[in-house]
Amino acid sequence: MTVLDLRGDVVELARALCDIPSESGAEAAIADAIEAALRPLPHLAVERDGDAIVARTNAGRARRVAIAGHIDTVPIKDNVPSRRAVVDGVDTLIGRGAVDMKGGVAVQLAVAAALAEPAADVTWILYDQEEVDTSLNGLGRLARNRPDLLEADFAVLCEPTNAIVEGGCNGTARVRLRAHGVRAHSARPWAGRNAIHGLAPALATLATWEPVDVEVDGLVYRESLNAVGLSGGVAGNVIPDFAEITVNYRFAPSRSGAEAIDRLRAMFPDADLHVEDLAEGARPGLDAPIAREFVAAVGGRPMPKYGWTDVARFSALGVPAVNYGPGDPQRAHTDDEAVPVEQIRSCERGLRAWLAS
Amino acid sequence: MTVLDLRGDVVELARALCDIPSESGAEAAIADAIEAALRPLPHLAVERDGDAIVARTNAGRARRVAIAGHIDTVPIKDNVPSRRAVVDGVDTLIGRGAVDMKGGVAVQLAVAAALAEPAADVTWILYDQEEVDTSLNGLGRLARNRPDLLEADFAVLCEPTNAIVEGGCNGTARVRLRAHGVRAHSARPWAGRNAIHGLAPALATLATWEPVDVEVDGLVYRESLNAVGLSGGVAGNVIPDFAEITVNYRFAPSRSGAEAIDRLRAMFPDADLHVEDLAEGARPGLDAPIAREFVAAVGGRPMPKYGWTDVARFSALGVPAVNYGPGDPQRAHTDDEAVPVEQIRSCERGLRAWLAS
Repeated sequence: MTVLDLRGDVVELARALCDIPSESGAEAAIADAIEAALRPLPHLAVERDGDAIVARTNAGRARRVAIAGHIDTVPIKDNVPSRRAVVDGVDTLIGRGAVDMKGGVAVQLAVAAALAEPAADVTWILYDQEEVDTSLNGLGRLARNRPDLLEADFAVLCEPTNAIVEGGCNGTARVRLRAHGVRAHSARPWAGRNAIHGLAPALATLATWEPVDVEVDGLVYRESLNAVGLSGGVAGNVIPDFAEITVNYRFAPSRSGAEAIDRLRAMFPDADLHVEDLAEGARPGLDAPIAREFVAAVGGRPMPKYGWTDVARFSALGVPAVNYGPGDPQRAHTDDEAVPVEQIRSCERGLRAWLAS
Repeated sequence: MTVLDLRGDVVELARALCDIPSESGAEAAIADAIEAALRPLPHLAVERDGDAIVARTNAGRARRVAIAGHIDTVPIKDNVPSRRAVVDGVDTLIGRGAVDMKGGVAVQLAVAAALAEPAADVTWILYDQEEVDTSLNGLGRLARNRPDLLEADFAVLCEPTNAIVEGGCNGTARVRLRAHGVRAHSARPWAGRNAIHGLAPALATLATWEPVDVEVDGLVYRESLNAVGLSGGVAGNVIPDFAEITVNYRFAPSRSGAEAIDRLRAMFPDADLHVEDLAEGARPGLDAPIAREFVAAVGGRPMPKYGWTDVARFSALGVPAVNYGPGDPQRAHTDDEAVPVEQIRSCERGLRAWLAS
């Protein structure tokens, strides 16, 4: 088993984490290494649920924060072991997980070890299976099995944000807009009714819709509405009786999922609308005093998170949550996943400064 | 081998033809029976090309007419042998091919045998593989191998028309209208360009297009324009970079295929248009004296043919052609294919009256 040195250089710690393969569903080795590194620390109470590790301080502070990160990666693609190189003059860690999100996990573990007496009690959460179907998600499993472990006044998810604070996240709905018709031979189309033609108003609405900016708790979220799928047709000489557009609506966290669906129904009054997938957004919660202190401590101007992340799970539990971690989210999952090592150090400093104050 | 009695009852002849299975590609048995029945007739010169039979009178008449029909059927579906029954008070022949088009073939063979001295020379054509890919079509093969056998001043195709004259046929074009875009994650759609949205103008044009009536040689053809297929999409969270609509344009025979494509390009100026299939229409040619005599002899008011048929092959050879045969074209290919026997008799009388005059 790899022995992790939590008190050494945080970049070397990130590199060691990258070099333990941990594709989703195969996190036992990295979970074992993390558990073994945390258990000896006297200021932490460590629990394990499957391949998720939860380590808590219990210093009797007035406030508790949860700081979470996932330990799995998408499949390796000739990019483990990791390597460190100077790219365009920038000292860089390159390899699967460097961005998503072993850099963030290294930050968590380094600060967890360094701060025996944090200003707020901290629940460090390292969880499995974030990169696969949501039903397998380790944080979701913890919320079901041990909701007490997720109780907190504020949460930080160390997902990559280029080391700035990204608050909350948009919600996402995927619906199918269906049109029905009557089949006929295409030589005599007037005997039928063309379902594809029935989608024209919906497609016109989609094509002319402009992204909308919505301010929530001081951050400006951008909503979007897009067709992501299209299907219909029976044969080259048949008027089709069925066609559908699949639509993805990314909605600001000021709306509930139910409100988002109502809004879609109002936008597409003629369509037979079926909800395929719906995930609530998360408000940034940056107006809470603890969040303001966090932003002040780590520096920079908070930005909204457009994509959906597990902050929404904390939000659903009533815990305001933000994203803050090293790495460019656009580089996540790419074969050349790479993070400037200074971002890892910067996040480690930021998090430690906040929790020490 | 079934012995066909060409001088007996034409309905019984139709029934005997139905009872020789002849799915496309397996016409040898029915072709053998037809050839054996025609060869002994001294007024006919019989030739065979594959499973197509051509029988000609050579009486030195000033004009020659071609009368053609296909001997294959779509697959049998528990509807051979045929049966004869009174349906809603109507004496009916029921079975595969009754409509498409062994009723018509029976009419051809009965008149071919009966008329030793027709008023115009006649080329009787019985051909294979009409119901499958156009590259296999027996009439097309004859046109390539023996174009001399198809020479005529006028042609009749005994396809089902409910025993009225249907002139010419619409042309048909199938094209793909493609839209291209740039992929992006659907959480940040502004980083890409949605190809599905790019189809909105084309779909709007299709949905608002109204069928147009076009008069050609005294018959009114109805044009139509329909989406028959729709596809696009990469994944539920990806802005798609490609989408397409497949469109079927049925155009009046006054337009050439090239003109029809030009018209489509003008209607869809923004689309990347690919021609998938194009078949010329056929003018009815009902203004020629020989055609007028035909219409007068068989009676009824000529109608346009909306669907595409092999009359277009004669038209392409410069031979005006019409459809005229027993059976409702809407019943072709149905499992309960059935023809009122009076329509078979009516066509036999009509064709004989015209050729005898």
